[in-house]
Amino acid sequence: MKYTLSVLVENHFGVLSKVAGLFSRRGFNIESLSVGETEDAGISRMTIVVDGDDYTLEQIEKQLNKVIPVIKVRVLPEGTYIERELTLIKVSCTNQQRPDIMKVAELMGARIVDVGSNCMSLEFTDTRRRTGVLLSLLKPYGIRELVRTGLTAIEKSSKQS
Amino acid sequence: MKYTLSVLVENHFGVLSKVAGLFSRRGFNIESLSVGETEDAGISRMTIVVDGDDYTLEQIEKQLNKVIPVIKVRVLPEGTYIERELTLIKVSCTNQQRPDIMKVAELMGARIVDVGSNCMSLEFTDTRRRTGVLLSLLKPYGIRELVRTGLTAIEKSSKQS
Repeated sequence: MKYTLSVLVENHFGVLSKVAGLFSRRGFNIESLSVGETEDAGISRMTIVVDGDDYTLEQIEKQLNKVIPVIKVRVLPEGTYIERELTLIKVSCTNQQRPDIMKVAELMGARIVDVGSNCMSLEFTDTRRRTGVLLSLLKPYGIRELVRTGLTAIEKSSKQS
Repeated sequence: MKYTLSVLVENHFGVLSKVAGLFSRRGFNIESLSVGETEDAGISRMTIVVDGDDYTLEQIEKQLNKVIPVIKVRVLPEGTYIERELTLIKVSCTNQQRPDIMKVAELMGARIVDVGSNCMSLEFTDTRRRTGVLLSLLKPYGIRELVRTGLTAIEKSSKQS
């Protein structure tokens, strides 16, 4: 089963390696991980998507809480958060195909960020499901390069209002 | 000095921990890191922003190339790539302030992804500089939560065309 974890950590070197090490020692595969600053420059937030079982996850949660630079660990329950992923896609195109790809971008809400004589680069931010749809529409043209940030998530405000 | 690295790795558990460990042992602070799948499901791409000196970076590059699941390491030269970061921001707002925040979002090209009775969540994808501008405009309202993916980057097509 897949789980999304939100982990607040102190912004020290070595923390990422400790956290990643914990997962790998337990045989948990990290499907995606993104880490960046928060509103407090000394604190970073990691969003981690992992694949594993319930019991192992519980063990990892306990161990993460013991790693000193970890401030807070939350397993985000399905449906309580807004998930987004940023994808940059470089797609091959001929002059004839360019208008078609522009239409796909417009339809899906992707932005064109770079144009070459035989390729285009698009920026797309959405859920994993919608990103999958965009990729399947672009695949026939030939995807040259694909960069994904991994999932990031923020709690829905409905609980707080 | 800050460097942006693009690292292709095999999608095994333990790789992230090895790569992160290499940086921390050399005293390099990872400012941001994002890792996600590529066009090939067995291969992931990490985009890493680090702060350090030229000499140490060269050492790390060499060592990274020795880590077996690392396929390719590139230090991206300034100006040759398109950089983007995804940020999710939960900002406090009263009923009176809501239209003002909507105007800021429209002006900057941020999307409103969630609305509560006393807060709103925005999604924003852009460069670090523009993200800084948006955050400074929202700060007076009170930023409750901030989640950043860290920088991700794709090479400009101009070289290939």
